[in-house]
Amino acid sequence: MEIKSYKKSFEHSYTFGMFPTVELITSRPQAVVKVLVSSSYRSDNSIDIFELCRKHNIRTEINDKAINKVADKENCFVVGVFEKYSCSLSSSQSHIVLVNPSNMGNMGTIIRTLVGFGLSDLAIISPGVDIFDPKVIRASMGALFRVNFRYYDNFEQYRAEFKEHMIYTFMLDGAKSLKDVKHDEYKKFSLVFGNEATGLDSSFAGAGTSVLIKHTDRIDSLNLTIAAGIAMYHFCS
Amino acid sequence: MEIKSYKKSFEHSYTFGMFPTVELITSRPQAVVKVLVSSSYRSDNSIDIFELCRKHNIRTEINDKAINKVADKENCFVVGVFEKYSCSLSSSQSHIVLVNPSNMGNMGTIIRTLVGFGLSDLAIISPGVDIFDPKVIRASMGALFRVNFRYYDNFEQYRAEFKEHMIYTFMLDGAKSLKDVKHDEYKKFSLVFGNEATGLDSSFAGAGTSVLIKHTDRIDSLNLTIAAGIAMYHFCS
Repeated sequence: MEIKSYKKSFEHSYTFGMFPTVELITSRPQAVVKVLVSSSYRSDNSIDIFELCRKHNIRTEINDKAINKVADKENCFVVGVFEKYSCSLSSSQSHIVLVNPSNMGNMGTIIRTLVGFGLSDLAIISPGVDIFDPKVIRASMGALFRVNFRYYDNFEQYRAEFKEHMIYTFMLDGAKSLKDVKHDEYKKFSLVFGNEATGLDSSFAGAGTSVLIKHTDRIDSLNLTIAAGIAMYHFCS
Repeated sequence: MEIKSYKKSFEHSYTFGMFPTVELITSRPQAVVKVLVSSSYRSDNSIDIFELCRKHNIRTEINDKAINKVADKENCFVVGVFEKYSCSLSSSQSHIVLVNPSNMGNMGTIIRTLVGFGLSDLAIISPGVDIFDPKVIRASMGALFRVNFRYYDNFEQYRAEFKEHMIYTFMLDGAKSLKDVKHDEYKKFSLVFGNEATGLDSSFAGAGTSVLIKHTDRIDSLNLTIAAGIAMYHFCS
């Protein structure tokens, strides 16, 4: 495996920096190929990368050149190299569903938030950004490795697999205000969010309960990550 | 006034693109110096920049060279040039208080969210990012022009000016869960958030009611913009 700047077509990807690399190693040790360590790396008191890798039988390699090549401008001392993997969503868990997400930072932030609210399953309706792009991983602060995710060709394909989930579609013209949504806690839910620029099209109004997070008309919409954060807070707290 | 890449020391700043420029013109017409328009600009059906500027007695200038100079990589057809202005916060409005915010995108997103929830006043405790940086304006989608903001040297200075506001400090070890916070609607509130990396230091625990947005221990904290969004939703919806 040659260490080069990340491309979507690769079978592998990278974590940049200590925090996401530790998340990778502890959550997905079987996926790790090796860990590149800078010659400038110094262990802090809390955790030593060499010790952690030894514990998980993961190969380390001091390799400044490779780090500079893949993590340019990142100024990081530790890079995890891992093989991409696939997951299945759990039918006994609630889900977040992102329809055509187009911004890597947003996807990473949403992943971090969903893990923060105790969720673990993310469906992505294609086309959507590459979840293994290092930009997504960085924005998720490594929380990506704690979630199950799966890409679906369209919403119907997702829906066919999870017929029992209560569907909530977040739309600017949603029929019900989030404040008034009382979810039956014995049922699993799917919170569905549209693309950053276009939202969900009108076909989603009938897919379940369409929900509106009320805001003033002085902005055209809430930021996607904010809307998703508020929705998760409402459903999970 | 020479049109150059933005620097904090300038007395003026820029809006890039149609949407934030329209917000600038409609909310702060008196601050606009001129509007640069690309020779490739074509009016869409909804709004014509020349007409809007004429209505507000604002000078327009076809100037591709200046646009390329200040808005490199932005590929925009309209640039607003405006003089920086100062504001006062209103004691009859609730406030958002950002202590040492360090990320321009976050500040812009928070501004957009606060306008979305009907708030209008933002205090910034120095040091904090430059609110007039075009990156902040872009992330706010121009909502910046709809808020009053003011920088304070420290929290005490802010507090001395607004003695009647109920202070809520958002902290990882906050004493009260947000769910349990019932704000007296006849009083104004100040929602106080710390720096992205460090949060609020322990001195803020006694500044008012310290509040926790509960999350799992699988992440170290919620993203600042998400925490602020959830808090505003709780207080304003």
